[in-house]
Amino acid sequence: MFEKILIANRGEIALRIHRACREMGIRTVAVHSTADSEAMHVRLADESVCLGPPPARDSYLNKVALLSAATITGADAIHPGYGFLSENADFAEMVQEHGFTFIGPSPQLIRMMGDKITAKRAAVEAGLPVVPGSEGAVRSEAEALALAKEFGYPVLFKATAGGGGRGMKVATGPHDLGEAFSTARTEAAAAFGNPEVYMEKYLQNPRHIEVQVLGDSHGCAVHLGERDCSLQRKHQKVLEEARSPALNDEQREAIGETARRAVERLGYVNAGTMEFLYENGGFYFIEMNTRLQVEHPVTEMITGIDLVREQIRIAGGAPLGYTQKDIRFHGHAIECRVNAENPETFAPSPGRVTDFHQPGGMGVRVDSGLYQGVMVPPHYDSMIAKLIVHGPSRNECLMRLRRALDEFVIEGIHTTLPLHRKLMRSPTFLDGAYDIRWLEQFVAEGQH
Amino acid sequence: MFEKILIANRGEIALRIHRACREMGIRTVAVHSTADSEAMHVRLADESVCLGPPPARDSYLNKVALLSAATITGADAIHPGYGFLSENADFAEMVQEHGFTFIGPSPQLIRMMGDKITAKRAAVEAGLPVVPGSEGAVRSEAEALALAKEFGYPVLFKATAGGGGRGMKVATGPHDLGEAFSTARTEAAAAFGNPEVYMEKYLQNPRHIEVQVLGDSHGCAVHLGERDCSLQRKHQKVLEEARSPALNDEQREAIGETARRAVERLGYVNAGTMEFLYENGGFYFIEMNTRLQVEHPVTEMITGIDLVREQIRIAGGAPLGYTQKDIRFHGHAIECRVNAENPETFAPSPGRVTDFHQPGGMGVRVDSGLYQGVMVPPHYDSMIAKLIVHGPSRNECLMRLRRALDEFVIEGIHTTLPLHRKLMRSPTFLDGAYDIRWLEQFVAEGQH
Repeated sequence: MFEKILIANRGEIALRIHRACREMGIRTVAVHSTADSEAMHVRLADESVCLGPPPARDSYLNKVALLSAATITGADAIHPGYGFLSENADFAEMVQEHGFTFIGPSPQLIRMMGDKITAKRAAVEAGLPVVPGSEGAVRSEAEALALAKEFGYPVLFKATAGGGGRGMKVATGPHDLGEAFSTARTEAAAAFGNPEVYMEKYLQNPRHIEVQVLGDSHGCAVHLGERDCSLQRKHQKVLEEARSPALNDEQREAIGETARRAVERLGYVNAGTMEFLYENGGFYFIEMNTRLQVEHPVTEMITGIDLVREQIRIAGGAPLGYTQKDIRFHGHAIECRVNAENPETFAPSPGRVTDFHQPGGMGVRVDSGLYQGVMVPPHYDSMIAKLIVHGPSRNECLMRLRRALDEFVIEGIHTTLPLHRKLMRSPTFLDGAYDIRWLEQFVAEGQH
Repeated sequence: MFEKILIANRGEIALRIHRACREMGIRTVAVHSTADSEAMHVRLADESVCLGPPPARDSYLNKVALLSAATITGADAIHPGYGFLSENADFAEMVQEHGFTFIGPSPQLIRMMGDKITAKRAAVEAGLPVVPGSEGAVRSEAEALALAKEFGYPVLFKATAGGGGRGMKVATGPHDLGEAFSTARTEAAAAFGNPEVYMEKYLQNPRHIEVQVLGDSHGCAVHLGERDCSLQRKHQKVLEEARSPALNDEQREAIGETARRAVERLGYVNAGTMEFLYENGGFYFIEMNTRLQVEHPVTEMITGIDLVREQIRIAGGAPLGYTQKDIRFHGHAIECRVNAENPETFAPSPGRVTDFHQPGGMGVRVDSGLYQGVMVPPHYDSMIAKLIVHGPSRNECLMRLRRALDEFVIEGIHTTLPLHRKLMRSPTFLDGAYDIRWLEQFVAEGQH
């Protein structure tokens, strides 16, 4: 096993990885920008290296600086966390070429899953259900019209190189298809330097349901159940739960087993997530994330399995040591992402945290790098804390979450805690009767 | 079920009870002394009533003030927590006479278990193994000599009205029995106004192992496994774990079932704990605590059962709704009691908390009423926080506890956190090879 791991990230996920390392007796190297020199992940690590100034491209995204930091500190392995370089196949390759272990899947699989077209092809071959869509990029409006007729409207155009919602346009019928196609191409070119778009059937009110998987280097694969991440605003997840309130046990079992078999067929090694849209009993693969997810703790809460520990063990060549039948699911878990944002306008709210008090007690977990007096810099993602709550049933979990939210104090900056507190009073949310469009409406209707 | 509960306590346990009430949709009334007006349990409760000034006899122990507070706030029930009036049968009786529900067992059972002699008699009748001892008080040195010959030395004298170590004396042979007997009587008279002492076989290096039990008002009883509370200093528990590292599953099962049957035979209703000494494979009942224990969270962590919720449900007349075979034990849990004390001298260290940061992440729970800026008053018990950690195995739990202790920050006052950190480096502790005398030696030998 490794003696020292360099954590190529910041914030709560750097702290999360540090904790797993500490609990395995592995020494940690933190990296940071000049804006993060007093961050919790830096304060707790065994060693730390300053990579450079913000923004991220001059520090956390600087591959050469990261490899130099790993070299000078004598690290054995690099954990990329999520975001930043976690799904950058070139970086994974460089890490390996320099003699370090990359804690994640192979560069080949990262590359395959990083491109929407090759990913979808691989998914089909691995037996995953997909949304009907174009074979590769759509060349012309005429081709788009023909395909849309086949799939049925509405249809969606997406940049082949894209992500995060840019370059995505919906056409509701032949009358607006031409405009959607050309706008999507223009936006894709501007955002990603590549105008290619592909097209697929657009699901109207789907849920976002994803399956956590683990594969080891000895051919063993398991799934750890699903997460429902349908509460989204501008394609960013806001709250996640496991298990999904929309599925029954038979459906869970089926999609889990489908995902598990796909891991085997792909030869996928390490932790990963298969994301699906779900509507009217059907699952449609959207993408595979070849890394740890922000929302991984809800799975940890219901399975008792420490996903970061498993990532490290797998990367070190250890066998999982258990099979699907050994995995048990207990109760229900919900995660609230707390962002440093104005809860009305969602404008970023960096600044100094003047008061920080996290909720405690039974079934409550907080993953956060915040502390009283820390500066939340303006340069990075606004997610500053995750509140994760576990209970024997969804209802008990909701009651516990409500009381934990009432106890949570973050002062000095705006946060989205008030949005989460309002969600706890929404009958639609409490009933679990939401889809991926619902939160936008909830916010727009000023119920929030 | 109840609509409003008055919490007749302070500190972390008042907060603990508040949390359970909140999660059940029950409104809470906090009570407090003038020294606690800014305490967390007061800040979070729906209502609060000031009972009077410190010390406790003028506020938290003032039965009439408590009943008045319950009356004016319209509470349905009173939860006594631990300490204070939690095992005061007269108070439980007064609560009932005034039309409130006492969240605990009947006054009769509290009274029976509050007197060492009647408690032991009841335990024997309920099938619990006991330490060989005198039938009632020992009248003379001659009687003591005869009994000691029968039991074998060493023997222990204990005040019949006592508790907390006062009035306790050991005799190692006939040569020092007379002195031990008379000193114990003198101390008992001074401390409790009653010189009566009883005598029992003295176990040399026992462990303190206790079993958590629950009984409902419909005749159903369960045990929730054992806790090992052998790490003690001056008869005060310092760290507790579940399960006990000293027992195998067969022994656990046997003592658990013995305790469960005793609950049935006693007709005991609510949560309780049967405390045993354990030596060389034998269990010896010492007492039954007819209330919630400080260390109840370790049981919650391994069973997933919320003990305060169960206490409230049972007091409200609800059936447990599960039987022994439904209870599953998962992993291992350890609780560290953090006291506001100098970690070298154990002198109390009240004062203002200038910095407070609790550890987070997977498997970590903190139960504490502390926050940055709060005043720890000098008038009460010095226990200010409980750090509880859960993991799949004892070893993983220990590693997690060590990293959580490293993250815990309490500044402005002295705390026993350094003692816990030192324990994590003790081979004897790590091996689980300690007994109830070991911690005193560890501290005395300056390893601490």
